[in-house]
Amino acid sequence: MEIKVVRKVLDRNDTTANRNRMLFAEKNIFVLNVMSSPGSGKTMTLQKTLKILAPEIRSAVIVGDVCTTHDAERLAEAGIPVVQVNTDEFGGECHLGAHVIEKAIDSIEMDGIELLIVENVGNLVCPAAFDIGEDARVVVLSVTEGEDKPAKYPAMFRVCNAALLNKIDLLPHLDEFDVEKAAGYIQQVHPGMPVFRMSAKTGEGMEPWLDWLRERVREKQAG
Amino acid sequence: MEIKVVRKVLDRNDTTANRNRMLFAEKNIFVLNVMSSPGSGKTMTLQKTLKILAPEIRSAVIVGDVCTTHDAERLAEAGIPVVQVNTDEFGGECHLGAHVIEKAIDSIEMDGIELLIVENVGNLVCPAAFDIGEDARVVVLSVTEGEDKPAKYPAMFRVCNAALLNKIDLLPHLDEFDVEKAAGYIQQVHPGMPVFRMSAKTGEGMEPWLDWLRERVREKQAG
Repeated sequence: MEIKVVRKVLDRNDTTANRNRMLFAEKNIFVLNVMSSPGSGKTMTLQKTLKILAPEIRSAVIVGDVCTTHDAERLAEAGIPVVQVNTDEFGGECHLGAHVIEKAIDSIEMDGIELLIVENVGNLVCPAAFDIGEDARVVVLSVTEGEDKPAKYPAMFRVCNAALLNKIDLLPHLDEFDVEKAAGYIQQVHPGMPVFRMSAKTGEGMEPWLDWLRERVREKQAG
Repeated sequence: MEIKVVRKVLDRNDTTANRNRMLFAEKNIFVLNVMSSPGSGKTMTLQKTLKILAPEIRSAVIVGDVCTTHDAERLAEAGIPVVQVNTDEFGGECHLGAHVIEKAIDSIEMDGIELLIVENVGNLVCPAAFDIGEDARVVVLSVTEGEDKPAKYPAMFRVCNAALLNKIDLLPHLDEFDVEKAAGYIQQVHPGMPVFRMSAKTGEGMEPWLDWLRERVREKQAG
C-alpha cells in the first residue's frame, strides 16, 4: 500500500514534469538538473560555469535548498537571473519536485533564455527519483567523499548523463582516494557515461565539461 | 492529503521505534544513531571509535546503505558484530526506518552488548525524521562540505545531541572553510550542542568525543 502511495506521488510528478518539458521545448531552453551530496561543490561549479558561458549563452538558475538563500546570493554574483526555492515551504522536502520548478519558472522571464540550470537539494538518493522536465542530469561527486559512492548510490549515477568528479585539487592530500577506482565504479553502474575530472576552485579540467554543455545547448537551440 | 499519508508512515514508525526502545532499555543497551551526508567519514570515525573502546565496552553495529556491503566489511575488521542493511531491499529507502532496525537486531546476539551504533544512510535530510528507538543522535560534518550546512539542513542539526566536525586534517588545504563560522551556525540552529573538532584519519581531537560517548554508555549501564 505504501508503494501505491509513492507511485501516485510520482505519477502526479511525471504529469507536471511533462508540462514543464513542453514549455521548455516551445522556448528551446536546455534544462540541466544538477544533483549531488551536500557540499560536493555544486554551487561553485555553477558559479564558474555560468561566468565562463555568460558571453555566449543566456542562462538562468533555479537553486533548491531546504533552508537559506546562500546559494542564490552566490550565484547572483554571476549576473544572471536566479530563483531560490526553499523546500521548507513545501514540507522540508529532500528533493525538488516538478511542481516546485513549475512554480519557480513563473518568476523568471524565460523568453530568450537558452540554458536553465536547476541546482537540486544536496542529496544522493531522493532527487534521482523525480523528473522535473529536464533535458539532462549531471551528478557532482567530490573526491573527498570516497570513491565507492557510485556503487552505494547507484540510482543517482544511473539516471545521470554525465558525472563531474570535483575538487581534484585536493587529491594530493587524500591518500585513500583512487580516481581510477571511482571512475571504474561509475562505469559499472552506468557504462559509457562521461566523467569529467575537474576542480571548480582552480578551474583545472573544466573545458571538456563546458564543451559537453555548450554542445547540448546548441543542439537544443537548433531544435 | 499527502501530509496525512506521511504522518501515517511516521506514526507507524514511532510505534516500532518505541518497541525497539523498550527492548534496548530492558538490556541496558545505549543506542547511538549516526547520521551525515555521504562521504563525511562516518565509517572511518566508527572504525576508530570502536577500536579504541573495544577493551572497555562491548559494542555492535548496524550499518545502512542503499547498496553494497563495503562499510560492514570495513567495520568487521574492528572484530565486533556488524549487520549490514541494504535499503534497496526496502524500496531503496533514503533512511533507516525503525522496522529495518527491528529486523536487523534479530540477527545480533544482543545479550551483553552495551553499545549499539547505527550508521544511517548518508543523507542530511530524511533520516532526521525517523526515530529508530535510539538514545542519542550524532551528526558528522566534514570540513570539506562547507560551513553553512547546519543552516541549510537545520532539522538534522536540531534533532542531534552532538556534532562531529570531521577531517580537520584537511583544514590547511581549504582556505574557504571557517571553523568558527561552522560552529556558529550549529549554535544558531541548536544552542548548546557540543561540537567535537576531530580527524578520524589522524586521531586528532577524538578524546573529548570518546569521553562523551563513554559517559553516556556508563549512564545507561547504571540504569
